[in-house]
Amino acid sequence: MVLKEARLKQRAYAIILAMKISEIGEFGLIELLSDIVDKTKNLQNASWQQLLIGIGDDAAVWQSDSAIQLATTDSLVQDTHFDLNITSWEELGWKAIAVNLSDIAAMGGIPKYALVSLALPGELETNCVSSLYQGMTSIANQFGVVIAGGNIASASKATISITVLGSLENKFALIRSAAIPGNQIAITGYLGLSAAGLKMLKQKHSFDTETSRLLKQAHLKPIPRVKEGQILLNQGVRAAIDISDGLIADLAHICKASKVSARIDKNLVPIHPAVEANFKTDCQQLTLTGGEDYELLFAADSQIIAQARQAISCPITVIGEIIEGIPGHVILVNAAGGNTPFQQTGWEHFKSNT
Amino acid sequence: MVLKEARLKQRAYAIILAMKISEIGEFGLIELLSDIVDKTKNLQNASWQQLLIGIGDDAAVWQSDSAIQLATTDSLVQDTHFDLNITSWEELGWKAIAVNLSDIAAMGGIPKYALVSLALPGELETNCVSSLYQGMTSIANQFGVVIAGGNIASASKATISITVLGSLENKFALIRSAAIPGNQIAITGYLGLSAAGLKMLKQKHSFDTETSRLLKQAHLKPIPRVKEGQILLNQGVRAAIDISDGLIADLAHICKASKVSARIDKNLVPIHPAVEANFKTDCQQLTLTGGEDYELLFAADSQIIAQARQAISCPITVIGEIIEGIPGHVILVNAAGGNTPFQQTGWEHFKSNT
Repeated sequence: MVLKEARLKQRAYAIILAMKISEIGEFGLIELLSDIVDKTKNLQNASWQQLLIGIGDDAAVWQSDSAIQLATTDSLVQDTHFDLNITSWEELGWKAIAVNLSDIAAMGGIPKYALVSLALPGELETNCVSSLYQGMTSIANQFGVVIAGGNIASASKATISITVLGSLENKFALIRSAAIPGNQIAITGYLGLSAAGLKMLKQKHSFDTETSRLLKQAHLKPIPRVKEGQILLNQGVRAAIDISDGLIADLAHICKASKVSARIDKNLVPIHPAVEANFKTDCQQLTLTGGEDYELLFAADSQIIAQARQAISCPITVIGEIIEGIPGHVILVNAAGGNTPFQQTGWEHFKSNT
Repeated sequence: MVLKEARLKQRAYAIILAMKISEIGEFGLIELLSDIVDKTKNLQNASWQQLLIGIGDDAAVWQSDSAIQLATTDSLVQDTHFDLNITSWEELGWKAIAVNLSDIAAMGGIPKYALVSLALPGELETNCVSSLYQGMTSIANQFGVVIAGGNIASASKATISITVLGSLENKFALIRSAAIPGNQIAITGYLGLSAAGLKMLKQKHSFDTETSRLLKQAHLKPIPRVKEGQILLNQGVRAAIDISDGLIADLAHICKASKVSARIDKNLVPIHPAVEANFKTDCQQLTLTGGEDYELLFAADSQIIAQARQAISCPITVIGEIIEGIPGHVILVNAAGGNTPFQQTGWEHFKSNT
């Protein structure tokens, strides 16, 4: 009897997932998504412990253990940020949370809660939204984040806007405006994988299984450097940004905010071997301006960087230095010390990004 | 000389406002919007005093004076929530913030910071986004809220997603799930003005100047009941919601969350005189299901409601009572005590809202 009920429930669930969201309706969909989030409830996790009111009321309410709060918001817009021909809804959910966690990482913060604002076409299958939430809860769980609320509206194209809220352990944060002349410029991990992944997916290049997996994951399911951001902050780093627009563009953001210039040696930039081996002609372009690497770019004096390298398990590579000069100016030097002319500085909305 | 410089600056500003956002670009636009917000800086305001990092970094950072935080998010989507033929960008900015403040009000919270996530077409004039931000800062200032960050992306149609963050003075909040049988059901202000305003604007009805102004303002520039929410909470009210979907639908939300039914007398529902006088045939429909009134609907015992009435300057009207019954069920009775059949329960995304 119990087995029969379970089967009936499973069948009802399968029917719901095959419905269009215009059929299940806003409130039916909210219940379904709330169930998906509730299933991930884990009282070992501090964010769940401190959540007082989650999905289903007018606002989310939680108890904070820090007086310093931080919040960031970022959107993924259909046909601007994602193409449903090359990304699954589950990957999209992952990435929508990941790009926000990366902004929290770039401040050295501890992410706690996410609010999800969806604008979706009514003809979309409930199944797609369910997968989107599976992707979101999957990365949220990995980083101790709880999806505490949100909003759903109808629109002709999908827009996923996420806000991530968190806290800082003390009064300091990693900021863009703290770089000073004499600081070394360093970066976590390797660059170029995400842009190479996008190129592979768009142009249907074929590589060996491991390379394909690596490139695809870098572009569709990036892993934000949350722990690394906190360690950098604790080690005394003050100036940082995450690489979303591209190395040159994001370094220019630091330089503009800090009213300094930067000089980097293109031969020092850590290109991922899979990019170097498979994208010979545009390897440099992918690495310097490709963007969406979600690595942390930071500036600090050499001793702090040396300490940070000891404390962090991923590679940390020094690629240049902060110098006095025109605010926001980035100079790229080659091995011989000459300046390299540079065309495009990175991703910018509304400008044509070739 | 100084005068000449000021004139040149003014001329440069006029040129920028006449540009398309695809010409000024993402980062130019962020600078412009950041300037608009900065001009409203007011160190008398606690949110400005406590803001540590505002627009221009990877996340906003502030010092909180309460351990209990709350956050809500809501979007306005072009052609779903607004029609640019009947709303100005300034009004749109006001409303986008107002609907979120109303959610904070419905919890009895104190709103502090807003994050703004915009998806906009590149061909839009910078002027429009500037007006949008004028509208947002205008209401934000009135309620002591600071726009602390955001995000801009390109999209074919405009979507404005706002997150408002705030705090609660103590551990209690107004919630949907606290209504109990025997509670009276009451509402702040009058209903129907916003839906009547939408109808007037869509169908180009003409009324006397004062009525037109009143209806237009109710629909396009609603005033959230922030102070009233805090007073209700302090007076001991526990169950509340704001009227966004419509009286019946929002009361059903309270009843569902509280696992109770409600019985309301349609003759007690406070219809605004301007709606009663000018919308004779559909006055009841506009009032009961029109939605977007942003009044507070709450349930509490009669003594608490009597106290709240003393403490709040706007009208408070008792319209019915919470009863035991099917969770989420709302019974509408007429003067004779008979049940009134009811067709549509309110606004729901993805369902056809006639």
